[in-house]
Amino acid sequence: MALKVALLGCGVVGSQVIRLMREQADDLAARVGAPLELAGVAVRRPGRRRDTDVDPALLTTDAEALVARDDVDIVVEVIGGIEPARSLILSAMKGGKSVVTANKALLAEDGATVHAAARANGADLYFEAAVAGAIPLIRPLRESLAGDRVHRVMGIVNGTTNYILDKMDSTGASFSDALEEAQALGYAEADPTADVEGFDAAAKAAILAKIAFHSRVTAADVHREGITEVTAADVAGARAMGYVIKLLAICARSDDGRSFGVRVHPAMIPRSHPLAGVREAYNAVFVEAESAGRLMFYGAGAGGAPTASAVLGDIVAVARNHLAGTRGPAESTYADLAVHPMGETVTRYHVSLDVADKPGVLARVADMFARQDVSIQTVRQEGHGDDAQLVLVTHRAGDAALSATIQGLREMDIVRDVVSVMRVEGEDIA
Amino acid sequence: MALKVALLGCGVVGSQVIRLMREQADDLAARVGAPLELAGVAVRRPGRRRDTDVDPALLTTDAEALVARDDVDIVVEVIGGIEPARSLILSAMKGGKSVVTANKALLAEDGATVHAAARANGADLYFEAAVAGAIPLIRPLRESLAGDRVHRVMGIVNGTTNYILDKMDSTGASFSDALEEAQALGYAEADPTADVEGFDAAAKAAILAKIAFHSRVTAADVHREGITEVTAADVAGARAMGYVIKLLAICARSDDGRSFGVRVHPAMIPRSHPLAGVREAYNAVFVEAESAGRLMFYGAGAGGAPTASAVLGDIVAVARNHLAGTRGPAESTYADLAVHPMGETVTRYHVSLDVADKPGVLARVADMFARQDVSIQTVRQEGHGDDAQLVLVTHRAGDAALSATIQGLREMDIVRDVVSVMRVEGEDIA
Ligand SMILES: NC(=O)c1ccc[n+]([C@@H]2O[C@H](COP(=O)([O-])OP(=O)(O)OC[C@H]3O[C@@H](n4cnc5c(N)ncnc54)[C@H](OP(=O)(O)O)[C@@H]3O)[C@@H](O)[C@H]2O)c1
Ligand SMILES: NC(=O)c1ccc[n+]([C@@H]2O[C@H](COP(=O)([O-])OP(=O)(O)OC[C@H]3O[C@@H](n4cnc5c(N)ncnc54)[C@H](OP(=O)(O)O)[C@@H]3O)[C@@H](O)[C@H]2O)c1
Repeated sequence: MALKVALLGCGVVGSQVIRLMREQADDLAARVGAPLELAGVAVRRPGRRRDTDVDPALLTTDAEALVARDDVDIVVEVIGGIEPARSLILSAMKGGKSVVTANKALLAEDGATVHAAARANGADLYFEAAVAGAIPLIRPLRESLAGDRVHRVMGIVNGTTNYILDKMDSTGASFSDALEEAQALGYAEADPTADVEGFDAAAKAAILAKIAFHSRVTAADVHREGITEVTAADVAGARAMGYVIKLLAICARSDDGRSFGVRVHPAMIPRSHPLAGVREAYNAVFVEAESAGRLMFYGAGAGGAPTASAVLGDIVAVARNHLAGTRGPAESTYADLAVHPMGETVTRYHVSLDVADKPGVLARVADMFARQDVSIQTVRQEGHGDDAQLVLVTHRAGDAALSATIQGLREMDIVRDVVSVMRVEGEDIA
Repeated sequence: MALKVALLGCGVVGSQVIRLMREQADDLAARVGAPLELAGVAVRRPGRRRDTDVDPALLTTDAEALVARDDVDIVVEVIGGIEPARSLILSAMKGGKSVVTANKALLAEDGATVHAAARANGADLYFEAAVAGAIPLIRPLRESLAGDRVHRVMGIVNGTTNYILDKMDSTGASFSDALEEAQALGYAEADPTADVEGFDAAAKAAILAKIAFHSRVTAADVHREGITEVTAADVAGARAMGYVIKLLAICARSDDGRSFGVRVHPAMIPRSHPLAGVREAYNAVFVEAESAGRLMFYGAGAGGAPTASAVLGDIVAVARNHLAGTRGPAESTYADLAVHPMGETVTRYHVSLDVADKPGVLARVADMFARQDVSIQTVRQEGHGDDAQLVLVTHRAGDAALSATIQGLREMDIVRDVVSVMRVEGEDIA
């Protein structure tokens, strides 16, 4: 008996799911233990050209009716966005159907509702494709590391911004030139807001933090800064110091282990750090766990075929569960840790200041850091006279203390300009 | 109701399993849905000092009796080697108990027997820790990539040899000096044969190939060469060309997809390749799949705590399955592809020759390659007169043709010595 799959959406990802289900039908049947069959494909515009052949008889604009069909066993949601995706997933689950989705936006905004529906109806909810495309990350975090204590997840989870920052680093281009190139090559959308302002990465960070720390997290809990303010000078300055600027999603337990922070922002990391070598639109995620130590996962974070690979892996898992009459691991939020505000995050700052060329400037600047209990790791003076710049790197301190220091510096008469402020992550420099 | 775990072995890995079960008892109970309890610990020498506190009442030298106990739900085998590990695992399964093991030697030599027993008795067999320690690799390969077609798995899966080769590369040390250092630091055993001759890596390669290609593979199918013949000159020569020498485990589908090869040998890879940056005793595995593209997994490949992390992840999975009355994915060998002999493997060679300094030498050497249909990508002459060396890198060709070429070169009067022959893997150089 074939298992019937209802596919919701047939765009970049959905069309590849159809292609792979067709091309790999025999392998999939052998791995599942029964053939997989497409029951129907819900789209908005049935007449539209698709990236793969789709039997026109399968297409429908009535997604609700498709999901409600008695013969459908598994529902795959690759429409994206909050509605109608959420309603369709909830309908599927009410009907006892298991769901595979790639929808990071929905999971980050209202994952609790969807997970609750899965539990209430004994349905599976799998979503490997929602974070970092083809890279197996959800399964390793929630299954392989289930016997360990995760301290930190830090990753490059948005390919568009990594492409832009990588171009800026390798060619010296400005943000806007690099963005234009990314758009021309299809790495960035016409409206790049979701990527460059960090919304996409923030949704993924929320999903990762929830799994890593077994606690509820939504996109609203994520401190988010995009890369639009990163200048060619910032990138060149980082390069001169042996650093590279990346947009990082960081989920980190506090030192006492009782809370955690979730944030997305550009940061300087040493070029020797494994994440520094992640080029172009690739993604990579670094996980630090108490016993496992440091792990890294690297691969294509997006694209039709890679994302479809992750979706199909989930379809196989859900189909096997269906045949065995069982369910995969459910949502795990038992730890119920609090998300602490950004101000309590412990991090380091790199600060460049335009200062007046007067005696005692360094002492007064240093005093401003000391007043907030922020200790300075290195100071370098660059240029002379009217061109004098002070470049400082701090030790680890609370983000609130660091930003109060910057506020204080801005108000000092001897500080002509706070040229740049960037967090520093990864290994301490020796 | 607590789930009872029988632990077989309490050495490097077993003692850390006990420690983590104790220290993380609450988290484990929450994640499993029931507490985990140690039923007993089988060892050889009960009086021996352990790396963690073990209740003496739990220790026993009668492993068979422990495994047979009615109250035991899960058996964890971390003794290692073929016997008594195999008999104990088979006894456990006959009693319907699921098994978690880290035993690569047994799985590579006689996995079929153990998997058959699991199937026959409806028991789970999980073995994430058997390959690359803490790195989630088995689960991603057999679950996350279940909807994809794996073309190649290429990795550094032995920490000892990577440590030695990394030292040779970074300090110019000879093999024997680097081995001595590795032994002094505990990275290599007093008898280093299993590591330096590639037996350990070959066992892991067999396990990976079986999962990647859904076909039967044993250690005997693996072409194996160790690193004892790698000289400081080889390492320096590779370095001069922008390469680094690594001991690689490579499982690769043939171009027609109908068979695959499995091999472990030292090889030159470009320094720009992600595996080139894997330092010290770290492991990393590169996977190329049709839709997912290139993935890399990186982390600690051995050590008590990292390996125990992987064992515990499996214990949690098996315990959840037990409570749900279900089983994880079984052995998958449906594809039944043949393992082709090493001679049919397609690869590239780097060859250094001591040649007589006569006109026409290059033409005659090139002719020897041409006779075997091996085309040359680059040739470089180094030195002059009696010191003249020819350094050649070939294009991709069958390994049999390449080794016949080397044989022919050895027999030529103008070739004084075939100084080194090394396979080249990873990206082609531009
Ligand atoms: N693209 C990637 O690389 C990638 C990577 C990871 C995750 N994802 C996630 O995967 C999901 C799908 O992304 P995508 O790039 O494939 O999107 P897409 O190309 O925009 O495709 C969306 C599909 O949904 C259909 N659709 C839209 N509204 C609908 C409605 N009301 N009822 C029925 N069908 C409707 C569209 O129909 P028409 O074709 O008729 O317009 C289209 O086929 C999103 O959640 C995204 O975040 C994508
Ligand atoms: N060590 C690593 O980093 C690592 C990494 C990955 C996988 N593994 C695998 O994990 C397994 C265990 O490795 P390990 O390093 O922990 O080995 P180990 O330190 O040598 O420990 C072996 C344990 O098994 C016990 N044992 C030996 N023979 C026994 C018998 N006949 N009956 C009952 N107990 C017996 C020993 O008892 P006594 O203590 O009383 O001698 C000892 O506690 C092996 O399969 C290995 O390949 C190890």
